[in-house]
Amino acid sequence: MKLDKQSLEQHNEKLAAKHRRALTYVAEDIAHAEDVISKLERFQIAIPSWALGTGGTRFGRFSGKGEPGSLEQKIEDVGLLHALNRSSGAISLHIPWDIPQDAAKIKTLAASYGLVFDAVNSNTFQDQPGQAHSYKFGSLHHVDPNVRRQAVAHNIEVINHGVALGSKALTVWLADGSSFPGQLNFREAFQNTLESLKEIYAHLPEDWKLFVEYKAFEPFFYSTTIGDWGQSLLLANKLGPQAYTLVDLGHHLPNANIEQIVSLLLMEGKLGGFHFNDSKYADDDLTAGSIKPYQLFLIFNELVEGMDARGLDHATGLGWMIDASHNLKDPLVDLLQSVEAIKIAYAQALLVDRVALKEAQRNNDVVRAQEILQHAFRTDVRPLVAEARLRQGAALDPVGLFRALDMRAKLIDERGSASVATGL
Amino acid sequence: MKLDKQSLEQHNEKLAAKHRRALTYVAEDIAHAEDVISKLERFQIAIPSWALGTGGTRFGRFSGKGEPGSLEQKIEDVGLLHALNRSSGAISLHIPWDIPQDAAKIKTLAASYGLVFDAVNSNTFQDQPGQAHSYKFGSLHHVDPNVRRQAVAHNIEVINHGVALGSKALTVWLADGSSFPGQLNFREAFQNTLESLKEIYAHLPEDWKLFVEYKAFEPFFYSTTIGDWGQSLLLANKLGPQAYTLVDLGHHLPNANIEQIVSLLLMEGKLGGFHFNDSKYADDDLTAGSIKPYQLFLIFNELVEGMDARGLDHATGLGWMIDASHNLKDPLVDLLQSVEAIKIAYAQALLVDRVALKEAQRNNDVVRAQEILQHAFRTDVRPLVAEARLRQGAALDPVGLFRALDMRAKLIDERGSASVATGL
Amino acid sequence: MKLDKQSLEQHNEKLAAKHRRALTYVAEDIAHAEDVISKLERFQIAIPSWALGTGGTRFGRFSGKGEPGSLEQKIEDVGLLHALNRSSGAISLHIPWDIPQDAAKIKTLAASYGLVFDAVNSNTFQDQPGQAHSYKFGSLHHVDPNVRRQAVAHNIEVINHGVALGSKALTVWLADGSSFPGQLNFREAFQNTLESLKEIYAHLPEDWKLFVEYKAFEPFFYSTTIGDWGQSLLLANKLGPQAYTLVDLGHHLPNANIEQIVSLLLMEGKLGGFHFNDSKYADDDLTAGSIKPYQLFLIFNELVEGMDARGLDHATGLGWMIDASHNLKDPLVDLLQSVEAIKIAYAQALLVDRVALKEAQRNNDVVRAQEILQHAFRTDVRPLVAEARLRQGAALDPVGLFRALDMRAKLIDERGSASVATGL
Amino acid sequence: MKLDKQSLEQHNEKLAAKHRRALTYVAEDIAHAEDVISKLERFQIAIPSWALGTGGTRFGRFSGKGEPGSLEQKIEDVGLLHALNRSSGAISLHIPWDIPQDAAKIKTLAASYGLVFDAVNSNTFQDQPGQAHSYKFGSLHHVDPNVRRQAVAHNIEVINHGVALGSKALTVWLADGSSFPGQLNFREAFQNTLESLKEIYAHLPEDWKLFVEYKAFEPFFYSTTIGDWGQSLLLANKLGPQAYTLVDLGHHLPNANIEQIVSLLLMEGKLGGFHFNDSKYADDDLTAGSIKPYQLFLIFNELVEGMDARGLDHATGLGWMIDASHNLKDPLVDLLQSVEAIKIAYAQALLVDRVALKEAQRNNDVVRAQEILQHAFRTDVRPLVAEARLRQGAALDPVGLFRALDMRAKLIDERGSASVATGL
Repeated sequence: MKLDKQSLEQHNEKLAAKHRRALTYVAEDIAHAEDVISKLERFQIAIPSWALGTGGTRFGRFSGKGEPGSLEQKIEDVGLLHALNRSSGAISLHIPWDIPQDAAKIKTLAASYGLVFDAVNSNTFQDQPGQAHSYKFGSLHHVDPNVRRQAVAHNIEVINHGVALGSKALTVWLADGSSFPGQLNFREAFQNTLESLKEIYAHLPEDWKLFVEYKAFEPFFYSTTIGDWGQSLLLANKLGPQAYTLVDLGHHLPNANIEQIVSLLLMEGKLGGFHFNDSKYADDDLTAGSIKPYQLFLIFNELVEGMDARGLDHATGLGWMIDASHNLKDPLVDLLQSVEAIKIAYAQALLVDRVALKEAQRNNDVVRAQEILQHAFRTDVRPLVAEARLRQGAALDPVGLFRALDMRAKLIDERGSASVATGL
Repeated sequence: MKLDKQSLEQHNEKLAAKHRRALTYVAEDIAHAEDVISKLERFQIAIPSWALGTGGTRFGRFSGKGEPGSLEQKIEDVGLLHALNRSSGAISLHIPWDIPQDAAKIKTLAASYGLVFDAVNSNTFQDQPGQAHSYKFGSLHHVDPNVRRQAVAHNIEVINHGVALGSKALTVWLADGSSFPGQLNFREAFQNTLESLKEIYAHLPEDWKLFVEYKAFEPFFYSTTIGDWGQSLLLANKLGPQAYTLVDLGHHLPNANIEQIVSLLLMEGKLGGFHFNDSKYADDDLTAGSIKPYQLFLIFNELVEGMDARGLDHATGLGWMIDASHNLKDPLVDLLQSVEAIKIAYAQALLVDRVALKEAQRNNDVVRAQEILQHAFRTDVRPLVAEARLRQGAALDPVGLFRALDMRAKLIDERGSASVATGL
Repeated sequence: MKLDKQSLEQHNEKLAAKHRRALTYVAEDIAHAEDVISKLERFQIAIPSWALGTGGTRFGRFSGKGEPGSLEQKIEDVGLLHALNRSSGAISLHIPWDIPQDAAKIKTLAASYGLVFDAVNSNTFQDQPGQAHSYKFGSLHHVDPNVRRQAVAHNIEVINHGVALGSKALTVWLADGSSFPGQLNFREAFQNTLESLKEIYAHLPEDWKLFVEYKAFEPFFYSTTIGDWGQSLLLANKLGPQAYTLVDLGHHLPNANIEQIVSLLLMEGKLGGFHFNDSKYADDDLTAGSIKPYQLFLIFNELVEGMDARGLDHATGLGWMIDASHNLKDPLVDLLQSVEAIKIAYAQALLVDRVALKEAQRNNDVVRAQEILQHAFRTDVRPLVAEARLRQGAALDPVGLFRALDMRAKLIDERGSASVATGL
Repeated sequence: MKLDKQSLEQHNEKLAAKHRRALTYVAEDIAHAEDVISKLERFQIAIPSWALGTGGTRFGRFSGKGEPGSLEQKIEDVGLLHALNRSSGAISLHIPWDIPQDAAKIKTLAASYGLVFDAVNSNTFQDQPGQAHSYKFGSLHHVDPNVRRQAVAHNIEVINHGVALGSKALTVWLADGSSFPGQLNFREAFQNTLESLKEIYAHLPEDWKLFVEYKAFEPFFYSTTIGDWGQSLLLANKLGPQAYTLVDLGHHLPNANIEQIVSLLLMEGKLGGFHFNDSKYADDDLTAGSIKPYQLFLIFNELVEGMDARGLDHATGLGWMIDASHNLKDPLVDLLQSVEAIKIAYAQALLVDRVALKEAQRNNDVVRAQEILQHAFRTDVRPLVAEARLRQGAALDPVGLFRALDMRAKLIDERGSASVATGL
């Protein structure tokens, strides 16, 4: 299904007066409001193909209905999101869950929705039917060179799919680790990983990036071979200039200061991209901004400051992607909420008075520094984010419109209630 | 020093136009704005006497200047805070740091600033010169009945001071615990604590409450004898109807859901009071709302809902107090920031659409429930809080006025730069 | 398959000399060695029916081979374990994964292996085909009374199965919780749970116990309705004398002092049973004793002390069960390792010099208390545990014998390599 | 006071028979027992000068008695420890707490006890009387170049003291951090730190090492400028070949896998040294091995394996030091317990069957790998450690002898009960 223009316009008209009043109010105190809005317009967050279905936990899955049953339908779903918010103009594929049979056709289809292909993702944490070697004990770090070779070949295949689709990056999330002391020789596991990544890196097209993701634990419960930003950075540095660290918000030990990590990776020129989600306990994969919105703002505060310092374009300088698991909410609505929360945090960060903050820092005026950050955070920036959407032809209230048009019901009508998406 | 009326009025006049515009904007969408403002006016947060000096860590203390050197000067400081924000109308004493020599005189002095005396606090986690028995291995839980007797007697003495001042509650924070496995018999430690508390409880005036505080760890590092809300509740139930649990935000294990604890304690009729502060790692004792403002809002969301359900008056139904350590900021400014953050969270909680939320919960509409809470949280309620202050004759921007009048400099002039407050 | 007597005897003979030397050495310094051995002989740990297959994580499952495909084969597996170690003489069923079609026949089969039926477990965290109402948003705490009624009926059905098999307890692990702020009214969720449990409790046979398990998080990631020991105890107290708290080692927040919880629950007469496993990060469900063996010892130290103080028989006073997920190891070997680790910790706890410890505690002699505990822990008690096994007709080295006889290969021969057990 | 030879000999004679029996038993199964004992003999752990007095927490300090009141008395204390265990042959000074007035004399005094000087430690986390600039907002990372210059100069002064005493390393523990978001620009703080360290590094004698310590949090509670091993390694790599990372066991986020960090730092040739202590919650600074002895063993398992792989001498390849806070126990006894626990863990690690472990790892035999490690850990190695002591002329039971000779009482006699050591 597609969002019809008329419904969208009616929706926006209905909310127009209220929106204009709010925008006028908030914009009056922001000298660079136009600049903020235009940056918000350009800011796109990629949607992962596996996030369009209802996720589960190890204790079970409560599937939704009308989920996309094919890559084409997944693209249709992202197209719908993008029509609603004009902020989800990219899709990130996961191989082998979403192997495009005819890349050119898929590319054309995506383009018809205004979508491009973001980073491609490999999967060596699950066994596929007919696979020669098992990943039970890891993949790129495996003691057996045959397993490593198979995993390297898979990654190269993923790059090839990505090239055909116009992607410009490969994300490697390596589950590899151990669940019991003694299971692994940590150094050998690291060296094997490095050697494997080198082979993958060698197949990287010149204009591609390699994103090396890290994670503190799960699915292994004693050690993870790329377990923190330090290990990821070590690998990225040894691999070369096209290799970068990718930060997923849920992949840290309790209480980690993620914004500091982000800042230092930017300093080293090695921050590659971001996986957004939120969590209270572990890798909970909840809607972005649903648990710790202030942390999300503080991270964007570092991103804006650090990217500006390096002259990176906010919209294209890093890879932005959602990586969450939608166990309870309708996946499409969940994604709309995540995108909204991310753009709110970004907008707040754009409001931070950098000159005053620098001045406060120079004077160790801790009170003032807090006031500056919290003023930006407490400002209700929703009208700015809505205005950016409006100018791009999207809905003032995407979730409201999705609900009003009963879009999920229509998808169930089209696809049936038993349709289940591939993914976790 | 006192805040002179003229300065205050000039300050408020200067900010009046901007404030009115903001208030008009935000109030338009809030049907019960007047009710919110009037609740904010009544909401008072007690200031602990030990929080008026610069705190330290075990690695050292970087003292401030012009700190209050006597109980009289501490009352003067709280009077100043209260003049600035009209939300700090109570002071909580810590014995023996602040023993009033002449209770009647002290009471009159406090009254002259519009202050009353909140809960009194005992201290059995430090030895005082000339003390017969040491608290090195605990106090109310101690294996030696002589130590327990001494600690009980001290608590009774604290009650007596409180009675003279008009306090209505005793807060017992018990550091008692162990740092090594085997050091304690947990059951005996618990039973000794219970017996000691019973003796203290027996001396409680009829209209008094006993607040039993809990803490996960520190200053002991293996076990704490009143270590979590379950242990505190167990004790409060065994003690009787005047005994309650007191929640300090920094006294939990990592990732604890404090708002759920608050809700259940209210359900049991056993929530007694609150110590506000914020933290990222442990009992960091930072400014309220400086690290996890959304958590603070969620806690107030439960407080408002739960107190309304029990018919408790928000302003008087529980004991509200700040308990933080001001290591880096000027203590008075830190306290102003904490009070402001608490009132903002309270105001946001008052904005939650309870009817809609109940409806969403009844339908398991998780998306809608999140929208309702986050709408309240994202609303910029600062004009409401400021209006409440204005109506009570306080400053529109207390921190700004403190700064503009260079109040710390004046206090240093009066007290000298070497004046150091008692406390941690 | 069964363990043949001759293989067992040959195995034990081969190891006899070495064993005798070790036993002689260690027993010389332990006055009550015979008492320790006889307690070890009596100590049985129940095996859960779902632990006999290879578990997985939400990221996938790497199935083993030769897994039991029916309840009969599961009983056979536990029979094999019991023949190897004579410490696994009970099986704990999980309904509906293991519904006995003919209870009498199943009971007889179990008896033929020397097995009895431990606590039965209900499952309201997954939907079963054809189920009228979904547990997606919980079961006993659900806002919809129909769902609650269905879940209550299921629990009653589980009790009925248990009665037929000779079980004496129902374990209720309730996944019920929420993943987003606002999703639940905590108090109502708690009250609904209490009401539901009351109905289940009303159906409990007179000689049965109800175990109320708690868990900090997962599968919900914001709140769990029975989230800690305090909540479980509150429920158990409100339910009545047959209701108890069940402790699972992996169900706590980081750094929780579990041994103190155990001690206090024993003090209150409300500790019902134990689920053994080990973890580093979350509910990792690893082999008991594989990550924190000292913690396991400290817990047994409290169990022994506290049970003795209440006059509880170690073997029968509480429910002992393993609850782990065997993702990487052969499930049977994993269980053998867990049982061994548990018995080692129990043996060490039996060696603690209680008189000396009490004396040290009385004198706050922290050094001595640590020496006493660590002396017990550092003593190599494996010969005592082996001797207990030997006297009961089991193997001196169960894992070694399992390996030497290539038992898994034989099970694969019998069952085929595609046989997969029900469970997580 | 000195340990008199006769008392020592009587003590050892009394315990000789029991010891010999135990040693014979355990050594029979260890082919390389002599090698283990000889490695244990050579293994020395430095004692920090600040650990000889009773430490405190921010809530207070319960001082001991007979503490060393001067550097000379501190050396006497370490001499006493070394006489008791022959494993504490080095002392690590902390400047300015222990500035040697006459280095040559101090060196001679130390030599008379068989002691040398380990790494020297600078202190820029406290202000000293008369200091020009305050470290309230940090030192080497400070925004003000004057503060940085002062802190650099202090470190150079510390090096000079170390040179005079024969030390070969400088340990820099930098408390520098922030307690509130916005307080610091993370990148500038890092760059300032790097520039400051470069200046210190430039003054390092050719045969010296610079140890860069890291810590997750405390005394700052939002960020620490050298907060984890990744940041420390980054600095060490930018500084040059004489710079190394120093690992303190208590300086990590909850659940961190420290043994993996150790292994990777060894792989990178950048592990410099160790600060031993134990903890349950935070930087609790408890006796080594008192809370998580298995973790201590796993760390030594990596140390032995990794040092052997790089051809590093165990005794001299890294800097070994205790860094604990003795709040409850007699500091000297606490140190004896720590040294004993460290040597036990080291001995266990030496027992690991490396060939079998490698084989198990090659086959992903997780069960076997666990068995191998746990066999070493469960072996009672105390007789091996005692034998190493005996051969070096130390006591079979150092704590027992300290107690039997009532050494603290004698120290109180000599020094008075009011004598308090400098330190935290």
